[in-house]
Amino acid sequence: MDEKMARGKISIVGCGLIGSYWGTLFASAGYNVCLYDISAEKIEAAKKLIEKKLRLLEIDDLLRGPGTASEQFKNVSSTLDLAECLAGSTYCQESTTESRQLKEEIFSKMDELASDDLILASSTSTIPASHFTERLKRRSQCLVSHPINPPLFIPLVEIVPSPWTSEDVVMRTCAIMRTIGQSPVRLQREIVGFALNRIQFAIIAEAWRLVKEGVLSPEDVDIVMKDGLGPRYAFYGPLGVMHMNANGLINALRTI
Amino acid sequence: MDEKMARGKISIVGCGLIGSYWGTLFASAGYNVCLYDISAEKIEAAKKLIEKKLRLLEIDDLLRGPGTASEQFKNVSSTLDLAECLAGSTYCQESTTESRQLKEEIFSKMDELASDDLILASSTSTIPASHFTERLKRRSQCLVSHPINPPLFIPLVEIVPSPWTSEDVVMRTCAIMRTIGQSPVRLQREIVGFALNRIQFAIIAEAWRLVKEGVLSPEDVDIVMKDGLGPRYAFYGPLGVMHMNANGLINALRTI
Repeated sequence: MDEKMARGKISIVGCGLIGSYWGTLFASAGYNVCLYDISAEKIEAAKKLIEKKLRLLEIDDLLRGPGTASEQFKNVSSTLDLAECLAGSTYCQESTTESRQLKEEIFSKMDELASDDLILASSTSTIPASHFTERLKRRSQCLVSHPINPPLFIPLVEIVPSPWTSEDVVMRTCAIMRTIGQSPVRLQREIVGFALNRIQFAIIAEAWRLVKEGVLSPEDVDIVMKDGLGPRYAFYGPLGVMHMNANGLINALRTI
Repeated sequence: MDEKMARGKISIVGCGLIGSYWGTLFASAGYNVCLYDISAEKIEAAKKLIEKKLRLLEIDDLLRGPGTASEQFKNVSSTLDLAECLAGSTYCQESTTESRQLKEEIFSKMDELASDDLILASSTSTIPASHFTERLKRRSQCLVSHPINPPLFIPLVEIVPSPWTSEDVVMRTCAIMRTIGQSPVRLQREIVGFALNRIQFAIIAEAWRLVKEGVLSPEDVDIVMKDGLGPRYAFYGPLGVMHMNANGLINALRTI
């Protein structure tokens, strides 16, 4: 148990599906996890989901830290008091509803309660941190840490600093993500859609063009990705694939 | 053995890497495979590769038809005579070098030798069938059947008819692909890049934009696909994912 305690305490603010998955990931890696929400019912539902997911990960041999699922679940606590949730924590993952106003409110409260070395990370998939942290005194401790659904099986996390996020906070967030087995990618600056959704929207735009031009049905577009590009990209990125094809392409060009 | 023989004979024209993979797939599914090339050395290399790949598929329990790898390999024959290769065959997969001139030459020869019910399919990834079959008397029997590398593990095959390919030939090609465990997608008409490369180039274009704008390094772009979108697309297509996200999006819009 000492080894686990050494990982420290993580605050989970907002206990919907994404907050629950974060709680599962951190607990699975051996952290002490403290759940916070304004709804006791949501906290109870999150606890049930975390316990269930830890057991499923255990069955598939996918737990990321030492101990059994039930030992890891013992390190999950909860509170309806935000100050208690943040106290003694080094990293806070906020996963409340996707609303700029709500993010402003919750980050303002966390700004008041946070210690000097607490990282305040948002799971938002659409709202840059600069839109809800500008007026905070601890704004250099705030950033976006965007998971990909379902985060228990898809390791990518987009780390998106605001213009005033400190480099140290970015580096420590990336390091924490690696300790739970996630794969952080650090964006150099805020852009609309971050990186993943930029690429995803380029794919969707081309997919709709193919459907609109009468080349493929929507179902067949999905098959092109599912049975074609998806399995390939699970092993190689788009630029990596270009290198794989380079020799064949060069040979082909030589015959023209 | 009778069950295997009932699958019929497949002609493989051109014994490079792609021809060898096609030979492996058809042999693995229980077809009689006849390899043709102008080079005896290429045929021997292809046979060695097919035997090796069948054994590897057997180890991973991925053989697609009845019998052992060595039983399946016994159904692989070869010839330096194109007429002998095509005789008695119902489907021919051409995988020669990616050159329009070469495709014109080989398809012209096959046109002379083919029976009424022989499908002449090209593995080309870039040249529409209309560019090398227009003047053939059997042009209605010709089409593109484009595999994705590595075809032993990525099931997608793009079926691209020319304006004069008969509907019956398209349907039979799709059916044959299903018998070997591949996943055919039928394009309604010829377009540059077919469907897979159209989507792939949209991804590459967006990837380069992200690099050019200084948002991500090339290495990190590859991580976004490898650890993020790739595993997701191995299960769901881009339009399927949109439906998965729909409830969350609607809920988010309600809060604005």
